[in-house]
Amino acid sequence: MEATTKKKPVKVLPKNARSKKSIDSKTMMGLVYDGPGKIALKIIPKPTVVKPTDALVKILKTTICGTDLGILHGKTPTCKPGTTLGHEGVGVIMEVGTAVRNFKPGDHVIISCITSDGTCEYCKKQMYAHCEDGGWILGHLINGTQAEYVRIPHADNSLYPIPAGADEEALVMLSDILPTGHEIGVINGQVKPGDTIAIIGAGPIGMSALLTAQFYSPAKIYMVDLDENRLKMAKKFGATDTINSGKEDAAKKIMAETKDGVDVAIEAVGAPATFDICQLIVRPGGHIANIGVHGKSVDLQIQNLWIRNITITMGLVNTNTTAMLLKTVSSGKIAPKKLITHHFKLKEILKAYEVFGNAGKEKAMKVIIEP
Amino acid sequence: MEATTKKKPVKVLPKNARSKKSIDSKTMMGLVYDGPGKIALKIIPKPTVVKPTDALVKILKTTICGTDLGILHGKTPTCKPGTTLGHEGVGVIMEVGTAVRNFKPGDHVIISCITSDGTCEYCKKQMYAHCEDGGWILGHLINGTQAEYVRIPHADNSLYPIPAGADEEALVMLSDILPTGHEIGVINGQVKPGDTIAIIGAGPIGMSALLTAQFYSPAKIYMVDLDENRLKMAKKFGATDTINSGKEDAAKKIMAETKDGVDVAIEAVGAPATFDICQLIVRPGGHIANIGVHGKSVDLQIQNLWIRNITITMGLVNTNTTAMLLKTVSSGKIAPKKLITHHFKLKEILKAYEVFGNAGKEKAMKVIIEP
Amino acid sequence: MEATTKKKPVKVLPKNARSKKSIDSKTMMGLVYDGPGKIALKIIPKPTVVKPTDALVKILKTTICGTDLGILHGKTPTCKPGTTLGHEGVGVIMEVGTAVRNFKPGDHVIISCITSDGTCEYCKKQMYAHCEDGGWILGHLINGTQAEYVRIPHADNSLYPIPAGADEEALVMLSDILPTGHEIGVINGQVKPGDTIAIIGAGPIGMSALLTAQFYSPAKIYMVDLDENRLKMAKKFGATDTINSGKEDAAKKIMAETKDGVDVAIEAVGAPATFDICQLIVRPGGHIANIGVHGKSVDLQIQNLWIRNITITMGLVNTNTTAMLLKTVSSGKIAPKKLITHHFKLKEILKAYEVFGNAGKEKAMKVIIEP
Amino acid sequence: MEATTKKKPVKVLPKNARSKKSIDSKTMMGLVYDGPGKIALKIIPKPTVVKPTDALVKILKTTICGTDLGILHGKTPTCKPGTTLGHEGVGVIMEVGTAVRNFKPGDHVIISCITSDGTCEYCKKQMYAHCEDGGWILGHLINGTQAEYVRIPHADNSLYPIPAGADEEALVMLSDILPTGHEIGVINGQVKPGDTIAIIGAGPIGMSALLTAQFYSPAKIYMVDLDENRLKMAKKFGATDTINSGKEDAAKKIMAETKDGVDVAIEAVGAPATFDICQLIVRPGGHIANIGVHGKSVDLQIQNLWIRNITITMGLVNTNTTAMLLKTVSSGKIAPKKLITHHFKLKEILKAYEVFGNAGKEKAMKVIIEP
Repeated sequence: MEATTKKKPVKVLPKNARSKKSIDSKTMMGLVYDGPGKIALKIIPKPTVVKPTDALVKILKTTICGTDLGILHGKTPTCKPGTTLGHEGVGVIMEVGTAVRNFKPGDHVIISCITSDGTCEYCKKQMYAHCEDGGWILGHLINGTQAEYVRIPHADNSLYPIPAGADEEALVMLSDILPTGHEIGVINGQVKPGDTIAIIGAGPIGMSALLTAQFYSPAKIYMVDLDENRLKMAKKFGATDTINSGKEDAAKKIMAETKDGVDVAIEAVGAPATFDICQLIVRPGGHIANIGVHGKSVDLQIQNLWIRNITITMGLVNTNTTAMLLKTVSSGKIAPKKLITHHFKLKEILKAYEVFGNAGKEKAMKVIIEP
Repeated sequence: MEATTKKKPVKVLPKNARSKKSIDSKTMMGLVYDGPGKIALKIIPKPTVVKPTDALVKILKTTICGTDLGILHGKTPTCKPGTTLGHEGVGVIMEVGTAVRNFKPGDHVIISCITSDGTCEYCKKQMYAHCEDGGWILGHLINGTQAEYVRIPHADNSLYPIPAGADEEALVMLSDILPTGHEIGVINGQVKPGDTIAIIGAGPIGMSALLTAQFYSPAKIYMVDLDENRLKMAKKFGATDTINSGKEDAAKKIMAETKDGVDVAIEAVGAPATFDICQLIVRPGGHIANIGVHGKSVDLQIQNLWIRNITITMGLVNTNTTAMLLKTVSSGKIAPKKLITHHFKLKEILKAYEVFGNAGKEKAMKVIIEP
Repeated sequence: MEATTKKKPVKVLPKNARSKKSIDSKTMMGLVYDGPGKIALKIIPKPTVVKPTDALVKILKTTICGTDLGILHGKTPTCKPGTTLGHEGVGVIMEVGTAVRNFKPGDHVIISCITSDGTCEYCKKQMYAHCEDGGWILGHLINGTQAEYVRIPHADNSLYPIPAGADEEALVMLSDILPTGHEIGVINGQVKPGDTIAIIGAGPIGMSALLTAQFYSPAKIYMVDLDENRLKMAKKFGATDTINSGKEDAAKKIMAETKDGVDVAIEAVGAPATFDICQLIVRPGGHIANIGVHGKSVDLQIQNLWIRNITITMGLVNTNTTAMLLKTVSSGKIAPKKLITHHFKLKEILKAYEVFGNAGKEKAMKVIIEP
Repeated sequence: MEATTKKKPVKVLPKNARSKKSIDSKTMMGLVYDGPGKIALKIIPKPTVVKPTDALVKILKTTICGTDLGILHGKTPTCKPGTTLGHEGVGVIMEVGTAVRNFKPGDHVIISCITSDGTCEYCKKQMYAHCEDGGWILGHLINGTQAEYVRIPHADNSLYPIPAGADEEALVMLSDILPTGHEIGVINGQVKPGDTIAIIGAGPIGMSALLTAQFYSPAKIYMVDLDENRLKMAKKFGATDTINSGKEDAAKKIMAETKDGVDVAIEAVGAPATFDICQLIVRPGGHIANIGVHGKSVDLQIQNLWIRNITITMGLVNTNTTAMLLKTVSSGKIAPKKLITHHFKLKEILKAYEVFGNAGKEKAMKVIIEP
């Protein structure tokens, strides 16, 4: 539906050629998906305000998500070649449509990865992920944030004001991963004070679940991953126990150390093997909160689990806790900045993709891309 | 642990030989599981109060459950040969242990299928199904209710008083199927006023979900089954729409008739095919509430469902809504008696098993067994 | 803020003078509040679409609320003289602003008594009553529905589409009283199957609580009022027990007939005496759900209640269950039409106020006003 | 009902006369309430196991509660002269009745201030405060813990096992004040991450609310009291802002500093003036959680509050979070020991009462009494 803005011809950016002069005000740099395996930094048309509810935002900081790698690897056929990628970032508002009431040019904002029209049946239930005129469209169905500018539809409901004096870099984590870990992992999993929980996967999403789980004071937090460096990081971020599942049988160890298993098992990878660990360690009455994006089905051991009174949840982030998270960041309850390991300029974004795509080797967690 | 009462020798009941005189006060009739495929009505030792928290109950009415057929067919290896079957019924208290405070001889009671000690970690969370000294043990790990008498451990927490003047036959449905349909189907599924729901399976459990779902005023209730007679019955019990899944594609029809699928899909069979229907029809933000007892794993289509913000629940009944259900029966909000299609004497119980085991042909739903 | 539309001069309607010809397209009839004790049907300017989010609605049916009488009696100083009264009604859309996406001219709609911008902090929590650019403004801070036309701000979030074939008269009850009884009485009170509840006050709001409480299948519903006719009506609407508090001590009777009092006491009057009944009859762990609009403080017996683990709620309707209620009306779960006792033409609206203002004598519940 | 154990004659303890020899095994020291204004340390009969569900516990550490002062000051007429006071403590089990299954002699236990039979209607809802054969009876209706030994009825449900190696002194805080602050203040108030909350009263209960509120990561915690020393202590315990309500208008200050008031106002005093502060500062949609024990009614400003969609809760602790709290103490999430300011021997208990009764002057919070 938003295809018109994507169909305009794009020019490949000549090496080192870019300067402020070389680009007139109608174009900008952006990272464009060119089909499976192909992305390129190009000079593309600068977006404009199209609808009365739009805002035009100049990107101050953006980042790369695992989902972007998924698109690059051809796993997201709904994303058409020619789309500018990216659904995270903070920026400054340049222009707003006539119906935008909450923002004005000059306002600094967090861009939500989820666009919400605020009026459909799903939005009225706070299920913005399923907005009938939004949801996850940025850097997927419409052009995204890995560019100099981005058009944000339904701006009043899809942007969050940044309080004066805030550390904007930290707030990039509020576009997607922090609310995702919090809503789909921690809230869906119903983490409570005194609980024993396990998080399977110590990538950015698992780490976000780790940080936000601590809002609710679980007594014991197992972190399971194959990467020693990430497990070390998890310890620093508050995990009480770490297990390298490449070296020991995580499920066996957890079952041996707990009474009947864990209260909450959070899946933060998106693979059958990690989902299986969750199935093996959830205690009667417990929760499996799936955050991982799965590419194939999993074998649900319902012949064992039916009698255990468990709950399995899954979902796309609604970003309905973003305002709450902003308050916890502002008051110092959580420091999402520590997830950031690397910084790049927008012109170096292909290198940023390389580093983020080899996160283990590069010891990368989240990377920041700046103009 | 309760094996001592089961190891005593049993005598096979001579045909037509039983009379009040022929059995001394130390023995009684009971339906005994003799290993896969074998059950027999026998003269067995009459139970006694063993622990201070026990009650001895004379059975007034009992019934047969699908789970009993499961044991008969060898699907429940934890049930040892020699066990008297049955976990449902109403009766009158003959004797209580010294620590029983809530009941006295002469009291008429509903026997809960779940035994609860009331003091363990799980009982304190109202998760009686996982009681550390109880749970589903009647007619499974200890002798059950398909007999003249039964010993009920932890009587104070495992029996419910029958109000004077109540129709006791109807209350047999409160031992197991009505709370099961209500708790594991309707409450776990979070049925709300105005909802569109689907119940897959119109057996006694599906019918219990159908009856109790109406406590919460859903707007539309689909009932799906292969048996025309049961679907007709479901219509009478309040289903607004019925689908014979042997004749049409239930999932396709439901998706065509609803906006995005159903708010709640209740699985009341316990098979991959019926679970699959649930996976296909649940709308974003919806619930799959599994009640069925599964014998094998199911293929969870998490590659499609992860993004749909759905919740899947499963479990054994806690019977923590039995008191609530009793109030709704007493006030006429629900008439569980209509689930009863057949009556037998205890000495005819083998015939009752035959009828219940051929429920489709016999047009049977629940059968009552009386002394 | 919306005062400009109210300051225009109005002409008093000459007796019987009105005809289609006598009013040009820029004016219309409307019931105008002229200060304490004074209302008049006048020829006033017809509203227009002012903001891009507005809709202009032609009123098909409206009604009078107790709150309108409150304004008339000078109890609502925030309502300025010159305001057209009325916050309920169904109508047809004549024109929409450029940012309205969900409605188009010709659509039939329910007008919500609460205006919601859908983007402020409160709207994002579904607390539309406290919308920062809305809330209860219709017929209060801006001109209302007791007129031929009304301007509805934030139309996308403040109107509900009427399904084809619906009985529109019944749906007038969904503008205010049905959601009010449901949300502030029944949902806040957490009515559950099997509960014993009491509703103090059998006026339109109490009756709405009575009708919607039955969504959740309470076992016993006491209805308390001074008016025998209303109590008779309540019996027909589903009350299991009625008490004329002018003839007997309602609290005493309820305490004598229940174990420890009621699970939920719903106050639907707004006076110290009726709040006191609630305080006397709520059982340990129970709820007092206040719906009544109070003019003075009440003496909370916290010296007795602090130990009883009770919850007291109060509030203005959010109308966040209107869509749910619409489904229950459409499916026949509830028939709000039976609340309607009288019909009037708009030109007879002063007579309608008289009848509604003498509801006891006139045996009036809700009155419908039509063009 | 338990009066027999209280009617036995007691001997006044001769000054300095007590030694291990001087008391035969049938007597012990205990602090006895002798009517308004009178308490005395006496030699009284040592309790015994009376019912099969009883345990006899030797007290290792106990404490004094504000409620004990209330009894002393004649505010609790249900407590009869002759009763040994005290409802808090840790101890070691000396003997158990025949029906006690969870404990054996030698076990170290936390004594819950609430006795729960685990089988009545209220216990089955986890409302142990209203247990039909328990509730708050210790040191109130039956002899309590300010003695060398205490009889604990319904031991299986009224004691909690102390994990090996735990700091038992800290766990005395789990008998009453920590669960009270947590359940009646924090959980009833629904404190959430990012919330702004206010606690009125910085005594032991207010401090317990302060400590346990932090389980849920509120962004801002106001603590209001008249005592500078307590406010200083509150700052150390995690309050972000303190207000001396003797020096400034707390409500005015809070309303000036917050947008619309606080999300949660916790009343931890029990007086009209402190309840009034709560009424003035609660924001729309917010909660007033009353913990204070009130001696008279309060003037509820419902004429202002009805429209604000607020919830008021109150109650006696159920101690249904004691097990959860024990896990948080064991894992170091909370350090209740810091509430302890003074230590006394049992023979000095009258001095302990004096210090605790002059808490302000003595800078006392909780005092520990040891044998």
